[in-house]
Order: sequence, then C-alpha cells, then structure tokens
Amino acid sequence: MKGDNFTVWFTGLPRSGKSTVARLVLDGLREGGHRAELLNSARIRREINRSLGFSREDIKENMARLSYECRMLNRNGLIAVVTSVSPYRDLRDEVRREIGRFVEVYCRAPLEVLIKRDKRGLFERAQKGEVQFVAGVNAPYEEPIKPEVLLDTDREPAEACAAKVIKTLELLGYIEPMEQATYTQEETEIIKQRLSDLGYL
Amino acid sequence: MKGDNFTVWFTGLPRSGKSTVARLVLDGLREGGHRAELLNSARIRREINRSLGFSREDIKENMARLSYECRMLNRNGLIAVVTSVSPYRDLRDEVRREIGRFVEVYCRAPLEVLIKRDKRGLFERAQKGEVQFVAGVNAPYEEPIKPEVLLDTDREPAEACAAKVIKTLELLGYIEPMEQATYTQEETEIIKQRLSDLGYL
Repeated sequence: MKGDNFTVWFTGLPRSGKSTVARLVLDGLREGGHRAELLNSARIRREINRSLGFSREDIKENMARLSYECRMLNRNGLIAVVTSVSPYRDLRDEVRREIGRFVEVYCRAPLEVLIKRDKRGLFERAQKGEVQFVAGVNAPYEEPIKPEVLLDTDREPAEACAAKVIKTLELLGYIEPMEQATYTQEETEIIKQRLSDLGYL
Repeated sequence: MKGDNFTVWFTGLPRSGKSTVARLVLDGLREGGHRAELLNSARIRREINRSLGFSREDIKENMARLSYECRMLNRNGLIAVVTSVSPYRDLRDEVRREIGRFVEVYCRAPLEVLIKRDKRGLFERAQKGEVQFVAGVNAPYEEPIKPEVLLDTDREPAEACAAKVIKTLELLGYIEPMEQATYTQEETEIIKQRLSDLGYL
C-alpha cells in the first residue's frame, strides 16, 4: 500500500543531529511532491506541552501526544517527521505499534562529539548536576535494536544522512524513487542488505 | 484566498449539540471533496490531555493545543472542525487571532433542554455539587457576541444546523457552493444579511 501515510521517527541523544537531518529529509520529501509535516518534540514542549518534564511518565505522555498527531497526519495523507530523544525502547515500540507505518531513524554519535557540538552547555550542566534528566548523562538512553535507519552523524555529513533516510523509504516502498536520493548502486545494496537482515524487506 | 485551510470552531454548553452537528458538517464537507478532520476536545482530553482539568488555566492550555493542531492541519490543506465548550470569550478570541481563518459556531439551547438531553446526569451532579467546573451550572459560559453561525439546536434539527454551517462557509467564500447545503434562496438571504450585519461580508 502506497500513500503519504507513514511516520519517520528520529531518535537519539541531544545534539545527535536529529533536527538537522530531519529538516533535510522534510525538504527532500516536499521537493519530491510529498506532503510532510515536522513535529519537533523540543519545540512542541516549549509551545504547548509546557507542563511536561522529563520523567519517564512525562516522556510517555509527550510521546502519546506525538503519536496521536502522527496518526492524525497519516490518516489525512501526510507524512509525519518526528524528532524526539524518546530514550525508552518500550515507549518507542509502543508508538511504533500504534502508528503502524513507522520508520525509526537512530542518530548516533560518541558522547565526546555531542559535547563538542553542545554550544549551550547542556551536557556540561548535567555533568555538574545542575540539570536533571539529560539523556546520556544523568538519564537513560536505550539504543534502538532494529532501527530502519542507523546514522553515524559524526562520520557522515547531514546531506548524506538525509539521502540515506530517503533511500530507505524508497526501498521499503513507502515512496516512489526520487532523484534526491543520490546513493550509488553499491551503497543502495548495502542499505538493502541491512533492511533485509533486520527483516524489514 | 480559497483552500481547505480554515477552522470551524463549535462552542456551546455541554449537550448543546456541538458534536452531533460537527459530525454532520464533517461528513458534508468530505462528501463535497474536502479534506477535513474533527478535533473533539472531550475525546482529546480523554486520550492525550489527561492531566488537564477544567480550571481557566487548564482550559487555556487545552485550547492552545487545539489551536496548534488547527494551524498544523490548516497549513497542510485540511479543514479543522473543533468541538469544545471553550467557555471564555477572550480565550476564543485569542484562538481566532492565532488561527486567522476562523468560523465560530455557537450551539445554543435553554438549560432545561440541555438537562433533559443529559442522559449521564452531568448537570444534575453539578447542581448537587458533586462535579465542579460544569459550564452553565457551576462554571461560567460566556456567550459569543459575533459568532459567524448561531444555531438554536432545540428548534432546528441537526441536519438543518449542519446545512446552515455549510451555507455560511460558502457565503464567506471558504468553500465553493455544494449540493449538500439545501437552503432556499430566502433562507440563504437571511444568513447573508446576518453575516453582513456582523461585518463578516
């Protein structure tokens, strides 16, 4: 079944590049004629979910709301692109079950790289104990076991990461092949093999 | 400017018929080829805004979330149809300003009619003081001064109410004339005159 009715969910530690890559994916999808909407968890928290903190319960509620919005967008023919640390594996799996057509993108980079990128000093303040619930420092982050896309954002430029996401969407049959995904045949085969190994193809 | 990028906001006391009429409007719009989504405040509260009560502050936050969702739907070419008691005039006006393309539908009926309709005994329990924050009994409801549509749901059947909403959307230029709105020329003129008197035409 084709149609712009699926969700791309970016997970990963703060500063792992989720928003940067998601923004490029969104642009690529729109250029390809798709209707897509970005749901940035951090922005939504600032704007409408102000009362929610970062305890497991609050994260669960925030994810339930994101899931609700994804389903609303999807059933109306819009691709939902979500960026959310979403550190708990079982909560991500719950969202995956609810949404159904779901592609998990894990943005990964070593902590020292994240700290270097962290201009606002979030990790430093967490290390000093001034901020609580920072995933990777004083709160858990459970890595995805079978993400459809695994991005090592310290090694691949953002554009290549975005192209990899789009190529994956093509290979999974969610979208028709687009020009934007400029992967070589060999690189495509590697992605294909991985999806196949994970049982997604 | 045409396009399915506007919001129809049903306000009114509990049991005033908001959901019934909104559902018919939604069906009518969809039959007419429009893309529309229903945002039922009561259902959303049950599903994802569980932590919110009915104090003015909580109502404000709930409406802010509804407004956010309307804008998201509207900018993606979807009509948002909202049902929400939304008892405070200034909060409704704030949402109107935020959303821009906004049609307020006020569902009105005398309290005795609402009580008769109230199979779950909400008003009765409020009158006994067992339930707090029930608009119209122990919480305020500020009537709209200039709603684009005024429906006396105790006198007009739901189908006629829905047709009136759709006819109004046509007259305001939000949608092209549809067959579903079966108002006579005379009835249409009355609606037109009202919209003109209110400064909407």
